[in-house]
Amino acid sequence: MTAVGTLYGVGVGPGDPELLTVKAARLIGASPIIAYFAKRGGKGTARKIAQSYFGPSAVELPLYYPVTVELSANEPEYHELIVSFYDEAAQSVAHHLSQGRDVVVLCEGDPLFYGSYMYLHDRIAPRFPSVVVPGVTGMAGCAAIAGLPMTYGNDVMLVVPGTLSEAELEQRLANADAAVIMKLGRNFAKVRHVLQRLGLAERATYVERGTMQDGRATPLLQKTEDTAPYFSLILVPGRERRVMAQTTAEAV
Amino acid sequence: MTAVGTLYGVGVGPGDPELLTVKAARLIGASPIIAYFAKRGGKGTARKIAQSYFGPSAVELPLYYPVTVELSANEPEYHELIVSFYDEAAQSVAHHLSQGRDVVVLCEGDPLFYGSYMYLHDRIAPRFPSVVVPGVTGMAGCAAIAGLPMTYGNDVMLVVPGTLSEAELEQRLANADAAVIMKLGRNFAKVRHVLQRLGLAERATYVERGTMQDGRATPLLQKTEDTAPYFSLILVPGRERRVMAQTTAEAV
Repeated sequence: MTAVGTLYGVGVGPGDPELLTVKAARLIGASPIIAYFAKRGGKGTARKIAQSYFGPSAVELPLYYPVTVELSANEPEYHELIVSFYDEAAQSVAHHLSQGRDVVVLCEGDPLFYGSYMYLHDRIAPRFPSVVVPGVTGMAGCAAIAGLPMTYGNDVMLVVPGTLSEAELEQRLANADAAVIMKLGRNFAKVRHVLQRLGLAERATYVERGTMQDGRATPLLQKTEDTAPYFSLILVPGRERRVMAQTTAEAV
Repeated sequence: MTAVGTLYGVGVGPGDPELLTVKAARLIGASPIIAYFAKRGGKGTARKIAQSYFGPSAVELPLYYPVTVELSANEPEYHELIVSFYDEAAQSVAHHLSQGRDVVVLCEGDPLFYGSYMYLHDRIAPRFPSVVVPGVTGMAGCAAIAGLPMTYGNDVMLVVPGTLSEAELEQRLANADAAVIMKLGRNFAKVRHVLQRLGLAERATYVERGTMQDGRATPLLQKTEDTAPYFSLILVPGRERRVMAQTTAEAV
């Protein structure tokens, strides 16, 4: 009887290969099978980050997203296509596990926050042993690039996708102390407008390609374009900052 | 003329020493001065996590919190004591920097989310070069221990300290898809009550000492005690989970 393999969902962090954890580096280096999501024709962001840690005999298992550009996310065809893609991806991973081979699935950032790995995990973890290795999130990477303390003491923090409607964004953000707004892209102008109306734009920072080589952070109000790349975020630091920081000027 | 040193705010992750990043391990190993916050009489959680990476000639700079047990956080005396503690801590760190020595400040989890490092950063970063190395947050560590996918697609996620009043907790959480509730301790029963009233308790998981050796995750409703240790969290996963996961049973 062959023992089954273990599924490892491994966070590779926000971009800089040195921001992988020691555990992730060890598991990636030892794994016979390394799976990752990628666009058809691309190499995959997670793979690019983790590549230098691959063992010499690792076998790669790319999981190519289906082409969905002609479909809107609300159409049933899109939904069917995506669901059957995750079903098939889970099957290819499970095949290796059932043959006794461990599989590492590389995940940008952390595996359990907004990542494709979760759809594999939901399908595979009930049947095979699984271990999740947490990673540094994109938002922590971006805050670090900006050198921006985000949440103090009793601040409430909100993480919001920019894909929500303007009304919903406004309603959700109205209550936040600190906020992170993701998925900007074509939603950038809408998000900026909401932040301006709520009086949050002045203390917001825009971060592009955080922890990648060409990353940069600027005050939101200095960015004049109306769109942003996919790997970008807006960070609104919390309100409690002033309380403990009030003697800053004289402190050092 | 002596060049000044660099301040490194280094996240050491949620508890397991293998969950430090490769970059954190490298910087800690090379740093002449290693500072960390600790309770008087204690060794400090961040130090315990990072200790195995210290270089042989590293000089430790413990920053002991003042004793505040007799003061409530709302009293001006408490505030004064804490502010002058951070002022003095910043001075001892800045002293080394001005002498040309780099200083690594160890931070549990990530340096810029709910950590004491931020009060040093606010005081020192305007005057000396500083680099923040992001880390794996406690909430990512806890979600990994629980194997619990947290946020899908367009989920909005809320991070809330359990120290808020019952009314405020209820108002903030009413709108959340996914939520993380921290700072439980004596607030545990209040938080559980709010989650029950909002219908969120059934899908919530309680995680104690995530990624430490004695960590455990249980469904919230199976925890019957009314208090929880400081290093514990409640995780409420998002609502979109079912959408892409609906064929789970048949998938693998």
